[in-house]
Amino acid sequence: MKKLINSVDSLLDESLRGFAIAHGDIVRFNSDPRYIARLAPSKPGKVALISGGGSGHEPLHSGFIGLGMLDAACPGQVFTSPTPDQMLAAAMDVENGGGVLFIVKNYAGDVMNFEIASEMLDCPNASVLVHDDVSIPEHQGMGRRGVAGTTIVEKIVGAAAEAGLNLDSCKALGERVVRSTASMGVALTSCTVPALGKPTFDIADNEIELGVGIHGEKGRERIGLIKASEIVEKLAHTIEEELKPAKGQHVLLHVNGFGATPLIELYLLYNLAHQYWDSRGVKVARSLVGNFTTSLDMAGASITLTLLDDELTRYWDAPVHTAALMWGC
Amino acid sequence: MKKLINSVDSLLDESLRGFAIAHGDIVRFNSDPRYIARLAPSKPGKVALISGGGSGHEPLHSGFIGLGMLDAACPGQVFTSPTPDQMLAAAMDVENGGGVLFIVKNYAGDVMNFEIASEMLDCPNASVLVHDDVSIPEHQGMGRRGVAGTTIVEKIVGAAAEAGLNLDSCKALGERVVRSTASMGVALTSCTVPALGKPTFDIADNEIELGVGIHGEKGRERIGLIKASEIVEKLAHTIEEELKPAKGQHVLLHVNGFGATPLIELYLLYNLAHQYWDSRGVKVARSLVGNFTTSLDMAGASITLTLLDDELTRYWDAPVHTAALMWGC
Repeated sequence: MKKLINSVDSLLDESLRGFAIAHGDIVRFNSDPRYIARLAPSKPGKVALISGGGSGHEPLHSGFIGLGMLDAACPGQVFTSPTPDQMLAAAMDVENGGGVLFIVKNYAGDVMNFEIASEMLDCPNASVLVHDDVSIPEHQGMGRRGVAGTTIVEKIVGAAAEAGLNLDSCKALGERVVRSTASMGVALTSCTVPALGKPTFDIADNEIELGVGIHGEKGRERIGLIKASEIVEKLAHTIEEELKPAKGQHVLLHVNGFGATPLIELYLLYNLAHQYWDSRGVKVARSLVGNFTTSLDMAGASITLTLLDDELTRYWDAPVHTAALMWGC
Repeated sequence: MKKLINSVDSLLDESLRGFAIAHGDIVRFNSDPRYIARLAPSKPGKVALISGGGSGHEPLHSGFIGLGMLDAACPGQVFTSPTPDQMLAAAMDVENGGGVLFIVKNYAGDVMNFEIASEMLDCPNASVLVHDDVSIPEHQGMGRRGVAGTTIVEKIVGAAAEAGLNLDSCKALGERVVRSTASMGVALTSCTVPALGKPTFDIADNEIELGVGIHGEKGRERIGLIKASEIVEKLAHTIEEELKPAKGQHVLLHVNGFGATPLIELYLLYNLAHQYWDSRGVKVARSLVGNFTTSLDMAGASITLTLLDDELTRYWDAPVHTAALMWGC
């Protein structure tokens, strides 16, 4: 394993310290228990948005803290759930009279720990569960995993909270975004978790994993390498079967890199996905291309589609000021 | 070679088309000859800033087109210089009465072709040569390569052009930024150029290349894997010998990923580099961390330092609205 680190044990804290210094105009770092919070206090009465999960998916979630998005994020060790005490401390820190909304990706440890924190928290709180990975059947095992659609949920609900929507409305909006969003990915290589020191899975030089999870979880199908246009066809078709966008429907198209795939390939995938929807009369009205929900050093990418309406579009366009997404302010 | 492409021949055009659609609110794409230009016309009399070079370093340069930065970029094939006809067509397109300033990374093909374009262009024009890679002695061969410092030059000169500085002043400012900037990188793996189909160089599982170029050019030293703190010490020390920042000097610290190194490692490097300068009384006043001058799928990173003064800081902070850098507007 070759990584730019000092030791597996100190990796997370050293990285978070760097993040907090580099973005010291936006965030602050609490080291024990570990969370990152927005530097500027939010408006009194604003719903406090908190997310978190295992590290290794940066910029998700810490890169999404700031005006118009999250109030705090709780990072676990790499690919390991954060603990309830982190969530509780973060919630008590940033709660400002509007209650707390947890945005939780659907993984057993995350779900359980956010539930425990929710029970211990003595202020109004609720959760939105993100489960946008349509490579998995809806009711199998733990159900669908939360993947790159999380960025879309956090941006839209973040804008709504900033606009003054209350806790119930933010939760309902978040669940509507989840229902309107579907993702599917493809891996060309595995990632290597520092504590493990070797690739999470083996894959041959001529194989790809369709429907891979963002921790290297087994996908839907292991096949031989095919052209990008055929890959996009497969991913977009699965998404289409799920969301069934009507002709004329406005959508947000998000092409997300897993970490080691260059932008030149991500924009090529975007071009193909755009063609796919265009040929069906579906209008790509908003776009996001880049590395947002990563899997350490995995090569690969995912496609996410969100069905838009005027309200969701307005919240997507609203100003955001975070380390990883910034516009309108 | 596993890449998300359809064919080596169509890769660049497909990717540029995707880029131009995804950022259709900022740029437009001219396919023959190939260049990307700013969508909104600049103010009459503004110096037109044009850069370019081989593709594979995205978001450099196309991701830096827009308000407060470049007016156009000319992408060559992967790691291949663009041709003078691209530069000439881009210049004639975006020139708006203030003359043209070419920002050129110091590679033989780029330098030659921008010179030819400059001779053919019948409007006032000048060039700034970027040569910030201090891993190479100053007067060896072609001299120092232009690497991640290019982003800093394009941002600062872009802001100055937007503020109304004339061609001579923009050129002088650009050259001052180049003199104030030094970079050095480290590679953990090679990149794979699509047309070649195999890694550019071999490197063992326990080796790193110090001072690597952004096309995988040989560095200063091939050594065994060492800790991140020791790597940062070596890179920062070389930069320090070059720039000799005084105690109390304000600097911009840029940690740039080469493509396949995750953000969690880049922020860790940033933290170490910040400590390095802090311990010497040098004040890190501005920061940029992320993948900006990449080398396709190479794992590794570089450190860039720019000595700041009030003028450079003001131009760095000025509003910018591009695909890859956006703030203040």
